[in-house]
Amino acid sequence: MGATVLVPWEQNRENAPATVTAEVYDGTGEPPADLSDVEFYVVPYAKPGTAELMRRMPRLRAAQLLTAGYEHAIGHLPDGVGLYNGRGLHDASTAEHALALMLSAQRDMPQWAVEQQDHVWNPHYTRSLADSRVLIVGYGSIGAAIEDRLTPFETEVVRLARSARPEQDVHGIDALHRLLPGVDIVVVVAPHTPETEGLIGAAELALLADDSLVVNVGRGPIVDTAALVAEKGRIRAALDVTDPEPLPADHPLWEVPGVTITPHIAGGSATFYPRARRFVDDQLRRWNAGEQLANKVR
Amino acid sequence: MGATVLVPWEQNRENAPATVTAEVYDGTGEPPADLSDVEFYVVPYAKPGTAELMRRMPRLRAAQLLTAGYEHAIGHLPDGVGLYNGRGLHDASTAEHALALMLSAQRDMPQWAVEQQDHVWNPHYTRSLADSRVLIVGYGSIGAAIEDRLTPFETEVVRLARSARPEQDVHGIDALHRLLPGVDIVVVVAPHTPETEGLIGAAELALLADDSLVVNVGRGPIVDTAALVAEKGRIRAALDVTDPEPLPADHPLWEVPGVTITPHIAGGSATFYPRARRFVDDQLRRWNAGEQLANKVR
Ligand SMILES: NC(=O)c1ccc[n+]([C@@H]2O[C@H](COP(=O)([O-])OP(=O)(O)OC[C@H]3O[C@@H](n4cnc5c(N)ncnc54)[C@H](OP(=O)(O)O)[C@@H]3O)[C@@H](O)[C@H]2O)c1
Ligand SMILES: NC(=O)c1ccc[n+]([C@@H]2O[C@H](COP(=O)([O-])OP(=O)(O)OC[C@H]3O[C@@H](n4cnc5c(N)ncnc54)[C@H](OP(=O)(O)O)[C@@H]3O)[C@@H](O)[C@H]2O)c1
Repeated sequence: MGATVLVPWEQNRENAPATVTAEVYDGTGEPPADLSDVEFYVVPYAKPGTAELMRRMPRLRAAQLLTAGYEHAIGHLPDGVGLYNGRGLHDASTAEHALALMLSAQRDMPQWAVEQQDHVWNPHYTRSLADSRVLIVGYGSIGAAIEDRLTPFETEVVRLARSARPEQDVHGIDALHRLLPGVDIVVVVAPHTPETEGLIGAAELALLADDSLVVNVGRGPIVDTAALVAEKGRIRAALDVTDPEPLPADHPLWEVPGVTITPHIAGGSATFYPRARRFVDDQLRRWNAGEQLANKVR
Repeated sequence: MGATVLVPWEQNRENAPATVTAEVYDGTGEPPADLSDVEFYVVPYAKPGTAELMRRMPRLRAAQLLTAGYEHAIGHLPDGVGLYNGRGLHDASTAEHALALMLSAQRDMPQWAVEQQDHVWNPHYTRSLADSRVLIVGYGSIGAAIEDRLTPFETEVVRLARSARPEQDVHGIDALHRLLPGVDIVVVVAPHTPETEGLIGAAELALLADDSLVVNVGRGPIVDTAALVAEKGRIRAALDVTDPEPLPADHPLWEVPGVTITPHIAGGSATFYPRARRFVDDQLRRWNAGEQLANKVR
């Protein structure tokens, strides 16, 4: 009998190589009582407590996560087990939501939604995304996917990462203050690290022109919430992530004029599942063929 | 002294060829008392009553509109005067808003806006635009601009116009019923004509799968309002144009589940003005040089 793999979706079981014994556990309800044979474990997506099951898998050799973050799994990873993450699986969804936030803010969609509730037909001219200069802070995998989607909107994209990559026209973080005064929109899509915490604070907001837009699909603490509130709407914002998170009902950020909030849902859309299922199929095939798995983080 | 031109923006006066006498009338307040010298008239944008001034311009040779529609001007056009429209000036703005409507509907932006009003943080998975098959009904100038913007979102675009153009993969209107069952999103961006009135009616909506999305940035009467209301949310809709328009406060369409309404503002965004001013500059230059003007309709 072949190796036992534990996968989250029926599709993965059906597509598993014939020499593999595949079982399905989607993270809801009780896990299989006997996990002692599992050699390859795909941790179910967004199901707390499922990474811990690795401890009950003495024959485990590979653990596959479906998130880009993997800090939550490290503490449960037995020695000698390879850890693989879901880098890339959320790119399309997150980049798409960044555009939804930008377009929604520029075209006053929240206002139309509220006026529709009141049955009010009251047209006005809006801003546009076209002709905007957009700075992407954190020009990595998702940043590039955002640029792809921005380009046909007749925008100009300015790229910024930790380190400059002049051959790709990517500025380093040291150029941030120089670039801020010349842009209309800043999109934050960096990871949360000690260096990025508060990266967009009072000094940086002050460098932005009136009515600029800050979009955050990275992590809440990268934008200083108190500084943004203190701008009182001089700078607009469209935030999928906030600090703190979830945002408490009595937080002043909810009511700052020109601030739009979605509750950390950029990565979580229908886009994800087909990509994640295909990726698990591919990893299983690679694993069975003795090939190198993609996305190794440990 | 050179010919007299009447233009809507100061920029046009400044950029006018030196041999031309340019005066500015933006359509607000009283027009110049003496219009008898005007040979070239740029009708101010969205200012009712300004097309009628042509009757007071005995030397008029060219009338430039800034809208694509020109029906409202025909009745005031003196014999022998050339009429030019604003075709193309609204393409970027209208295509951009079509994307704003699609993304907003797929990513539940109206719901997040309303929940923000209530200070509610309550995440859920959303639909996505990625992986959607999108049918463009009226694949003309704006339709092509919509496709340009859709492509990087990992969508599949299906093109439909009045007449098939097989070499460009454009279906003719006779293919409509065959195509509807296979698409996730229908974008209507055709003109209002006897043939397009009610084009998307009860029979067509019935061919669409549950939870499909109908976007209308063309003209309200192309989608049968009563048929859409009768769907009771089985088909979602994101409408920039409605029938009737403006939509009366007591109309049932406001409250159909899954229906989003913006008050005919797709073409009216910041995008328009720079493009319109540049276009007027270019037309004046062509006119002064004795070249053929662009966008002749009469
Ligand atoms: N809202 C959501 O639902 C959601 C979903 C998915 C991901 N995210 C967030 O998006 C982030 C980016 O994801 P990704 O897949 O694009 O990651 P990635 O490919 O690793 O790219 C991250 C980028 O951030 C840059 N960066 C790191 N530290 C920086 C600093 N101090 N200053 C400026 N730039 C810095 C990196 O620069 P170098 O290339 O120079 O290292 C890199 O270009 C994730 O870390 C996560 O926080 C959010
Ligand atoms: N919401 C707004 O604010 C806003 C702003 C601007 C424009 N619009 C609307 O958008 C419309 C399109 O503008 P455009 O500049 O893209 O015009 P366009 O370049 O003339 O394209 C119109 C397209 O509609 C197609 N069409 C005409 N009759 C049809 C029928 N019976 N069935 C299917 N397709 C048909 C035409 O097909 P053929 O190529 O085969 O003739 C053409 O492809 C305008 O007429 C206007 O109503 C709305």
